[in-house]
Amino acid sequence: MQKIVLIRHGESIFNLENRFTGWEDADLSENGYLQAKRAGAILKKNGYNFDAGFTSYLKRSIKTMHFVLEELDHLWIPVEKSWRLNERFYGDLQGMNKDDAIAKYGAEQVQKWRRDPNEYPPAITRDDPRFPGHDLRYQDLTDRELPLTENLSETMDRVLPFWNEAIVNAMRRNQKVIVVAHGNSLRSLIKYIDCLTDEQVTQLEIPTATPWVYELDHGLNQIRHYYLD
Amino acid sequence: MQKIVLIRHGESIFNLENRFTGWEDADLSENGYLQAKRAGAILKKNGYNFDAGFTSYLKRSIKTMHFVLEELDHLWIPVEKSWRLNERFYGDLQGMNKDDAIAKYGAEQVQKWRRDPNEYPPAITRDDPRFPGHDLRYQDLTDRELPLTENLSETMDRVLPFWNEAIVNAMRRNQKVIVVAHGNSLRSLIKYIDCLTDEQVTQLEIPTATPWVYELDHGLNQIRHYYLD
Repeated sequence: MQKIVLIRHGESIFNLENRFTGWEDADLSENGYLQAKRAGAILKKNGYNFDAGFTSYLKRSIKTMHFVLEELDHLWIPVEKSWRLNERFYGDLQGMNKDDAIAKYGAEQVQKWRRDPNEYPPAITRDDPRFPGHDLRYQDLTDRELPLTENLSETMDRVLPFWNEAIVNAMRRNQKVIVVAHGNSLRSLIKYIDCLTDEQVTQLEIPTATPWVYELDHGLNQIRHYYLD
Repeated sequence: MQKIVLIRHGESIFNLENRFTGWEDADLSENGYLQAKRAGAILKKNGYNFDAGFTSYLKRSIKTMHFVLEELDHLWIPVEKSWRLNERFYGDLQGMNKDDAIAKYGAEQVQKWRRDPNEYPPAITRDDPRFPGHDLRYQDLTDRELPLTENLSETMDRVLPFWNEAIVNAMRRNQKVIVVAHGNSLRSLIKYIDCLTDEQVTQLEIPTATPWVYELDHGLNQIRHYYLD
């Protein structure tokens, strides 16, 4: 039996402002910082330690990882960052206030974009300042990998190679792994691990900065999972 | 021509308390945190960006790296940590107040331990709580690699394989590199890069949290170096 801990980053400034974030690099809020420290303290209280960490290219996750590891006195473990763990790319909704989006497109359509794994938010164009091709950190991505919009299925398609190569390999070496990522990159991962239907993943809500423990068998199938709180 | 930036961590709580630190995992002081942020701001003002970071297993360096990268909006770059960049292992002096050490051993002897590259501070034993063999983070080190005391030459012997493999390899791939490490791991590195004599390295003092730029030729020989301030 093997355990892996998944954590959604703490509250960001965009969460606080009720804005769609996606690949926009919003910072942690003060509350998000406290949530991250609390998540670390909970893991410590429960006797957890880790050999390897994995997170995204976005600072709200990288900083959550840092503060969790600091609480655990584990800053020295290797932490691998990958764009593949980034939040879903929310296209033209990125940065937009969620109420403004509802006023413009209607509540039903916005809810579909948020939850239906096959729905795409409106795409941006390549000359949009939000296009990741303009950002140094994504300079090694291929044209095909640089998103203009993403549905959850596409998020899953780019998360899974990193899961199967980096994270599963670490677990195969018996490393104890912690992953800090985003609402939708984690939902797509859970959909895969738990073989959820599209309908089931629509209902899946992951709270911020709450350690979620997965116990997996040797085939890395789920035995059980639970939150630490 | 290739640039590399070397930074000694910001002030630690032990620096503040005038205690020998070595591999003791003292935290940054509040001033050390501000110094780290300032170093990042100086690099940003001077237009620096980086592809890869390297630091030690000790939190005063890891946190300095984190705050430098945060100021640069560069938290997403890969950061590799290695025990080989740790501070010199100060043996039985670790944790001791420097004035107490002078009272016990005499100023001349203490100065020799601090500065003569061939002098060993008194060794600890393997049952000492400070022996790194008791610490999870050093569990993969061989018996030979686990120190009881170190002189600067030995520090250099274990820093250089990491320099030659990890850091030089990154530079050969034309990556822009930042290293955050410790007074003596950096002194031993500089001794090697600049071919300093034992006498010269005795005089070398590296200020905390001040970016030190090395310009190197294609053979990685020093062209010139300067502090950014």
